[in-house]
Amino acid sequence: MSSADSTVIQLLSSLSISPKTVSHEPVADNKAWQAALDKAQTDVKYNLTKTLVLKPKTAKSAAPTPLFIVALESSETNITAIAKSLGLKECRFANEDLLKDTFNDDKTSVSAFSLSNVKDLSLVHVVVDSDLLSLDATELIAFHPATSEKTSFISSTELKVYLDSLGKEYKVINFKELAAAAPAAAAKPAAKAPSKPAKAAAAAPSAPAEDIHQMGIEHKKADDLPRWYQQVLTKSDMLDYYDVSGCYILRPLAYNIWKEIQNFFDAAIVEMGVEDTYFPMFVSNKVLEREKDHIEGFAPEVAWVTRAGKNDLEEPIAIRPTSETVMYPYFAKWIRSHRDLPLKINQWCSVVRWEFKNPQPFLRTREFLWQEGHTAHLTKQEADVEVRQILDLYAQVYTDYLALPVVQGVKSEKERFAGGLYTTTVEAFVPTTGRAIQGGTSHCLGQNFSKMFNIVVEDPNSPSTATEEAKKLHVWQNSWGLSTRTIGVMVMVHGDDKGLVLPPRVANVQAVLIPCGLTVKSKQEDYDAIYGACTDVAAKLKKAGVKSKTDLRDNYTPGYKFNHWEIRGVPLRLEIGPMDLKKQQVTAVRRDTGAKFTLPLDNIENGVKEALETIQKDMFNRALAERDANIVRVDKWEDFVPNLNNKKLILIPWCDRMECEDDIKDRSARTQDEDEEVDERAPSMGAKSLCRPFEQPTENPIVPGVTKCAACDHDAKHFMLFGRSY
Amino acid sequence: MSSADSTVIQLLSSLSISPKTVSHEPVADNKAWQAALDKAQTDVKYNLTKTLVLKPKTAKSAAPTPLFIVALESSETNITAIAKSLGLKECRFANEDLLKDTFNDDKTSVSAFSLSNVKDLSLVHVVVDSDLLSLDATELIAFHPATSEKTSFISSTELKVYLDSLGKEYKVINFKELAAAAPAAAAKPAAKAPSKPAKAAAAAPSAPAEDIHQMGIEHKKADDLPRWYQQVLTKSDMLDYYDVSGCYILRPLAYNIWKEIQNFFDAAIVEMGVEDTYFPMFVSNKVLEREKDHIEGFAPEVAWVTRAGKNDLEEPIAIRPTSETVMYPYFAKWIRSHRDLPLKINQWCSVVRWEFKNPQPFLRTREFLWQEGHTAHLTKQEADVEVRQILDLYAQVYTDYLALPVVQGVKSEKERFAGGLYTTTVEAFVPTTGRAIQGGTSHCLGQNFSKMFNIVVEDPNSPSTATEEAKKLHVWQNSWGLSTRTIGVMVMVHGDDKGLVLPPRVANVQAVLIPCGLTVKSKQEDYDAIYGACTDVAAKLKKAGVKSKTDLRDNYTPGYKFNHWEIRGVPLRLEIGPMDLKKQQVTAVRRDTGAKFTLPLDNIENGVKEALETIQKDMFNRALAERDANIVRVDKWEDFVPNLNNKKLILIPWCDRMECEDDIKDRSARTQDEDEEVDERAPSMGAKSLCRPFEQPTENPIVPGVTKCAACDHDAKHFMLFGRSY
Repeated sequence: MSSADSTVIQLLSSLSISPKTVSHEPVADNKAWQAALDKAQTDVKYNLTKTLVLKPKTAKSAAPTPLFIVALESSETNITAIAKSLGLKECRFANEDLLKDTFNDDKTSVSAFSLSNVKDLSLVHVVVDSDLLSLDATELIAFHPATSEKTSFISSTELKVYLDSLGKEYKVINFKELAAAAPAAAAKPAAKAPSKPAKAAAAAPSAPAEDIHQMGIEHKKADDLPRWYQQVLTKSDMLDYYDVSGCYILRPLAYNIWKEIQNFFDAAIVEMGVEDTYFPMFVSNKVLEREKDHIEGFAPEVAWVTRAGKNDLEEPIAIRPTSETVMYPYFAKWIRSHRDLPLKINQWCSVVRWEFKNPQPFLRTREFLWQEGHTAHLTKQEADVEVRQILDLYAQVYTDYLALPVVQGVKSEKERFAGGLYTTTVEAFVPTTGRAIQGGTSHCLGQNFSKMFNIVVEDPNSPSTATEEAKKLHVWQNSWGLSTRTIGVMVMVHGDDKGLVLPPRVANVQAVLIPCGLTVKSKQEDYDAIYGACTDVAAKLKKAGVKSKTDLRDNYTPGYKFNHWEIRGVPLRLEIGPMDLKKQQVTAVRRDTGAKFTLPLDNIENGVKEALETIQKDMFNRALAERDANIVRVDKWEDFVPNLNNKKLILIPWCDRMECEDDIKDRSARTQDEDEEVDERAPSMGAKSLCRPFEQPTENPIVPGVTKCAACDHDAKHFMLFGRSY
Repeated sequence: MSSADSTVIQLLSSLSISPKTVSHEPVADNKAWQAALDKAQTDVKYNLTKTLVLKPKTAKSAAPTPLFIVALESSETNITAIAKSLGLKECRFANEDLLKDTFNDDKTSVSAFSLSNVKDLSLVHVVVDSDLLSLDATELIAFHPATSEKTSFISSTELKVYLDSLGKEYKVINFKELAAAAPAAAAKPAAKAPSKPAKAAAAAPSAPAEDIHQMGIEHKKADDLPRWYQQVLTKSDMLDYYDVSGCYILRPLAYNIWKEIQNFFDAAIVEMGVEDTYFPMFVSNKVLEREKDHIEGFAPEVAWVTRAGKNDLEEPIAIRPTSETVMYPYFAKWIRSHRDLPLKINQWCSVVRWEFKNPQPFLRTREFLWQEGHTAHLTKQEADVEVRQILDLYAQVYTDYLALPVVQGVKSEKERFAGGLYTTTVEAFVPTTGRAIQGGTSHCLGQNFSKMFNIVVEDPNSPSTATEEAKKLHVWQNSWGLSTRTIGVMVMVHGDDKGLVLPPRVANVQAVLIPCGLTVKSKQEDYDAIYGACTDVAAKLKKAGVKSKTDLRDNYTPGYKFNHWEIRGVPLRLEIGPMDLKKQQVTAVRRDTGAKFTLPLDNIENGVKEALETIQKDMFNRALAERDANIVRVDKWEDFVPNLNNKKLILIPWCDRMECEDDIKDRSARTQDEDEEVDERAPSMGAKSLCRPFEQPTENPIVPGVTKCAACDHDAKHFMLFGRSY
């Protein structure tokens, strides 16, 4: 066995991979290889592979940055498309020198294993054929372990393990799709990807071409938010793509956040006398269309069931986009007297809005989870009070759980809920894009729906006489909703280039324990001591109600584990090594700041709890400071667009006229193109009004009749917050 | 004002109804009435009414049992259909004598108010036109308060209040539907009703013809379970009918039970390491059909979305009937090594199975809520253990929360989950019908799906060698589900002729406080004292974690309130009257037994808590005793069918052969008609195997080779439970 392949075999066995290996005469090409293997009469079902090494154009002086492609022999490798998708120019096949210098190999024997010979992998672009990673377990992959005289057989899984062990990001590409999508991909590879899950998923439900086999986040948050966002979500195991466009799988990490929100919010509304119910997800056309203005907004997005089994339904049935018209006929039936008021119900469910704009996980999805509350009151005053109580609860979800500041206020006439009287909102802010995002809305519907659905009671306060029947009152209604969008906002604001950053209060793993400092030389007692310490600490933490996990996987280095848990946003990492044990401490590392400090083993649970509380507080305060730094008060129009383009939210004295709002939107649009999704990084759309903050500036406030609207010459009525918005 | 109408006016004002009343010349018919009212130039928008009194055929000797119909003048009253729907024969218009004797009125002046003059209302069948009760509040109803010289105007709501105040059950009928459904209605009025919500709902979403305006339950549980069941559900405000057939509204009373089940079960599985997730409700055809055998069972019931807004989808998308094929492709993706095992996920969601059999609230609905758990394990043994852990939790839901006994066991080959290895089940029992009902199932899927979806890991126990790659293992999978069917079973077993009976642990109102012994003569201080006491007790109970409600409605008598809360199944009623105060006690009445006892006001919270615990225990023990009394061990076939028809479940020594099971079903079917729904009270279908109980009889057990199957001459393998089943 040559030293070369013994190295490879050693390397693989260190990954507990022991490939079957056969010897044969040296082979110059795959045809010969095939023949040789046939002769060797191995009983395995194998797939030949090809390994292409190319040299993109670089400055003469610069070191070469080879493009290294590993693929199935049978796959069609469109090198131009591949190169383009990586932004590489003019690739030529590498010469023998480059192969020798960089990979210590030659054309005939070069293979995925050659990558182990590379001194500085950061210079190499590695691309792997997705088909190579998704073979049936019974089909093996044939590689030259080193020279062309031997062939080793490994499985897709083993190849993954090997590639991951290189600690080098590699790109998994589905060549068929790439070929299909080539022109598009060339133009805008990733920005498009999320918009085409259905297509991307054609091969396997594990959707997009950009797969999660790479270890780290490839894209910088500041440079390319959409691609960064997609990678953070998938690589953190928070979410997975699905083969129905606009639908996503909420994995435990994400769903746990929703559960924490549910626990808090549901308990709070039950305390307010709200009762949980469940209405069917199906709505008959008749009922759906009862409130025209209201449904107008939803109609284009309604999904219709027209068939069951093999039978067409007599009439199509809609899936609820929201439940006002579903519920209110029953309000009319259930409310027979003022004594039945207030009626307060809520449901946790999913709703379907078949958007045709680009879907975005959490932010714009065709099915999403939410709660919808619907209440009826005797008086407007009562309804008003509830609207604000609910809005406060929504604000608490953001501030206390997601560590995000929000602005509470009232929507403008233009932006309020169709069919309602007024809409209050909590507005969050994404600094990276300088865009606001509506975080949850609490509507006072007034009497519009109660008049439509004839929800009336006798006025208990109008004494009825012998000749006059008691006065009829139409009830006052509210509706309010909060959705899983909350989770997306949290990711966008707190996440960093290493991945997810979770506020401790919503993390399903708040602290991860990682044994460190153990090497092949370590004695069994070292292992026992450190593993033992981990177990003790874990037990103490559980007892104290801290959600912790201990990563004892023996086939990964601590460094690998650090990355693994950083990507997943675990707030606190606890390292325990021999040194720590000697000092009776653990080494703690904060995910949010990276700050390293030690905690005494004695009473570790309190130390951890305090650290988690600090992290929660700090995360909120940082987000608050950044948000505040990005709200600018502007009194003259000249300052409006520059600040807007500088990613600010803008507070102006405003006349509160719809014409003025339309005008502001037009004048602040970078182009006339209204499609928000064209380019996340430089949105072209104009500014919307976000809300009239309940907290109006006290410093030189509006002087009625004197202060003018910053956008027109009319008198200003109040301060209004404007900005670009999701 | 004549004494007659003053009586009516008094009566109405006691209900705080003061109708506008106009005088005019006496009128002989509605034509004249119309004219008179026009002349009177009242400004109200009114609707004339007609009141029909008929005399059904009765034995000469018997007292007449008049049929009294109140309807809009404009409504078409098909008397034959109405009479039939009440099971009355040969109705003739009543003569003046009957009107005088029974209603103290004559043809021209008879009206709804005439009912107040009836001595024994139990003899009168009262029918009210549903249109009369659903008028817009601006439209009034014209009645003669007594004589035909006066007309009073009241609203639909007021009419309801008046009719309810009679304390007499009345039937609300939608005459249009009745006319349409007449033939059917004649054949089988109610048994059909639930099967036709869509039709029944044509007029208003407040579906079926049998409305909830009647105060009590009309049907005896023992006589007519289906109608009883429907009325208990609607009149207890547990559930409402919906205008999409097979879908129902879960009102707080019902949903709260589901919440209690969720809280218990979710906490328990999280403790087991199960993680909650959410997968999309939409499934592509491709994915749905991946496992043919499995989907075969569901395909005919799958609902398909084919349109969004105005656009047809490229390909139809299914709504999940269950999620095996949705989730397992991702298992294959997520499980890369034995270190990723066990993988345990669960989701709380709704699924859709578009059944075409008669829907039954909770028991067979087109959309229902459930949890579905899906797990993957390295070894069969591990999977086996989990299957039983979950089944135990399901059993606890029934025994500890719903106070229902269940039999735990294994399903026969014939009855197990398609595509699985074996199915375990908890089987409940409905004594009234003598039918068993599958309460929840925990399946071991074996490796069938993991082979289908290639979910494999390396065997950590097969040391891999230099020449042999490590052995691949297909994971062992389980899936398990529990649905809102649980609630239906609970209602069927515990409910009685007065309505719902709730086990305290799942009641959203555990105790209701009702002030008693207050009359018009009572002084303010009496009121204050008793209301004060109620408030104190309520506060103490809340502090002690008892869910209580205080019914201070001043427009209802205590008797009315007793009924109100009895129908809703509140476990404990607490009455506080002057006498009680004097004795520093409350009078408690148990819903389950009707037993009356007193509790000292001092430390009332403990008294109540103990009472609730006793009720919970007693309810379970009663159900257990009755269930046990209805399981018969049978060794000879001759005894099988007689016991079956005697509403027993039957335990027999069995050969465990599918042919034998088919044979038993045929031989025990009363007729060849296999439609279970034809007649609930005397099911014709044959016996199914329910399960092989884990607890096998120890008393003269099976002697291998000696004991024979009770149904054929083969050797018995074990005892099997058979019975008719939902």
